[in-house]
Amino acid sequence: MKLRPLHDRIVVRRKEEEALSAGGIVLPGSAKEKPNQGEVVAVGSGALLDSGEVRAVALNVGDVVVFGPYTGNAITIEGEELIIMSEADIFAVIEA
Amino acid sequence: MKLRPLHDRIVVRRKEEEALSAGGIVLPGSAKEKPNQGEVVAVGSGALLDSGEVRAVALNVGDVVVFGPYTGNAITIEGEELIIMSEADIFAVIEA
Amino acid sequence: MKLRPLHDRIVVRRKEEEALSAGGIVLPGSAKEKPNQGEVVAVGSGALLDSGEVRAVALNVGDVVVFGPYTGNAITIEGEELIIMSEADIFAVIEA
Amino acid sequence: MKLRPLHDRIVVRRKEEEALSAGGIVLPGSAKEKPNQGEVVAVGSGALLDSGEVRAVALNVGDVVVFGPYTGNAITIEGEELIIMSEADIFAVIEA
Amino acid sequence: MKLRPLHDRIVVRRKEEEALSAGGIVLPGSAKEKPNQGEVVAVGSGALLDSGEVRAVALNVGDVVVFGPYTGNAITIEGEELIIMSEADIFAVIEA
Amino acid sequence: MKLRPLHDRIVVRRKEEEALSAGGIVLPGSAKEKPNQGEVVAVGSGALLDSGEVRAVALNVGDVVVFGPYTGNAITIEGEELIIMSEADIFAVIEA
Amino acid sequence: MKLRPLHDRIVVRRKEEEALSAGGIVLPGSAKEKPNQGEVVAVGSGALLDSGEVRAVALNVGDVVVFGPYTGNAITIEGEELIIMSEADIFAVIEA
Repeated sequence: MKLRPLHDRIVVRRKEEEALSAGGIVLPGSAKEKPNQGEVVAVGSGALLDSGEVRAVALNVGDVVVFGPYTGNAITIEGEELIIMSEADIFAVIEA
Repeated sequence: MKLRPLHDRIVVRRKEEEALSAGGIVLPGSAKEKPNQGEVVAVGSGALLDSGEVRAVALNVGDVVVFGPYTGNAITIEGEELIIMSEADIFAVIEA
Repeated sequence: MKLRPLHDRIVVRRKEEEALSAGGIVLPGSAKEKPNQGEVVAVGSGALLDSGEVRAVALNVGDVVVFGPYTGNAITIEGEELIIMSEADIFAVIEA
Repeated sequence: MKLRPLHDRIVVRRKEEEALSAGGIVLPGSAKEKPNQGEVVAVGSGALLDSGEVRAVALNVGDVVVFGPYTGNAITIEGEELIIMSEADIFAVIEA
Repeated sequence: MKLRPLHDRIVVRRKEEEALSAGGIVLPGSAKEKPNQGEVVAVGSGALLDSGEVRAVALNVGDVVVFGPYTGNAITIEGEELIIMSEADIFAVIEA
Repeated sequence: MKLRPLHDRIVVRRKEEEALSAGGIVLPGSAKEKPNQGEVVAVGSGALLDSGEVRAVALNVGDVVVFGPYTGNAITIEGEELIIMSEADIFAVIEA
Repeated sequence: MKLRPLHDRIVVRRKEEEALSAGGIVLPGSAKEKPNQGEVVAVGSGALLDSGEVRAVALNVGDVVVFGPYTGNAITIEGEELIIMSEADIFAVIEA
């Protein structure tokens, strides 16, 4: 069972903890805030342009991404919470 | 008697219960929230582009879909409650 | 005397009562809500596209349609209350 | 002295009274509401499209029109109150 | 010293008093409202279309125009109060 | 050290006082309002059109301009307060 | 480890202090406001135009930029706080 996002939507698995906080990436704010980063687990087929063409999403499964607070809609699939958001909600990819 | 949705609208039969909650898909929140997933029972002929062309809806009857909370308008047809929403209200298709 | 709707507007005669409520179509909510369905009695010449072209309305006189709550503007013509709305306010056509 | 409306604007002389209320057209609501119908007395040269072209207004002087409540701006010319509104504020033409 | 309005802006000298109120044009409302008409004293070079073209303003210096309430920004030049507004704020030209 | 505004932004040096208030230009309101006029000190390379083209800003360094209240963002460069605004915030050029 | 901003987003390292405040650039307001200037440390691949084309960001790594208050989203990478914003949030480049 898996999710196939529509169009420019992507599915992200939020990082459970800030594994990289020592010398890594930490989001500002209190410790109770959930980290606004995660791994892309599914990518839609692309945005529908007004011209009728499709523009592929500039992200790949496995990308580690940073996104904004209060972004997306959470769902739980096979016991795991995932977030569905739009490509436009993604700020940047964290490259190793 | 059946519903023929206009343009990019689709008709969804909401899942009565979260049959898949054990190892399946559960939407977060209290048990009283209705599940935000369902089966597509009718699909419009497609979105009307500004160019005058029609873009087919990227969904088929029988697709199991995830959508947002507070989405669509409910109607009851032949005793069964259905939801009419736009394709843009659909986040993803759940594939078996 | 009749109404000729402009552009993408249509005129609908709201169903006075839910004739089909037994095994038919019932809109949810209290019995005091007016039914959000009706019959198309007049159709405009079509939407004006930015390109300058006209796109015909995808509805015909006689279609039984479902529309949203709080839709359109009511007028009374020759003693009968009618509703003027835009094609975009129509969700679906009920086919026999 | 006369008004020449700009672009897609039209000038309407509101009906003073509902002459047609017996078997004719009556707008709903209390008797104190002004009728939302009138006669077109001037028509602009047409809407300016983004393409730079002009699209003629689909109304003619003398048309009897129905419009929404709270529409347009009132002015008085040579002792007579008129309303200036946009073509988009007109719902339908009443044909004899 | 003079004002050269940018693009689709125009400069209007508001009528000090309703000279035409006897058989002429009077705006509705209390006597304390300023008249919403005036004479065009300067016209911009035209609206910038998305296509990159310029569309000339459909008004000329000397036109007597009607505009909406709360329109434009007032400035005083050489002791005289003027109003800068956009062409879209002008409803109609009053022709003699 | 200087500011290079991006795209359709311009940098304006606000007039410290209304030098021209005798027979010149005075903005309405109390004496405590800052004058909404100034001199253009830097101009961006032009607006980015949706077509991908660039449209030059219709202003030159040295132009004396009128702009709206509450417009732009103030910065101080080399001890002097300047305002960064968009070309669209400029109403008119004051020509000698 | 580094951030690769998506599309028209850029990453800025905010200036810790107003090094240039003597004869340099100072933002107005109380001393407690953070300076709204910084150095570009990463630039996205460009804005996605409706035409499907990509328009390169008009900024380079190393540019010192001025941006508005309350702009962007802060993240901390390898112990350093950075801000992710869109090109449209940048007002000007400070040139030496």
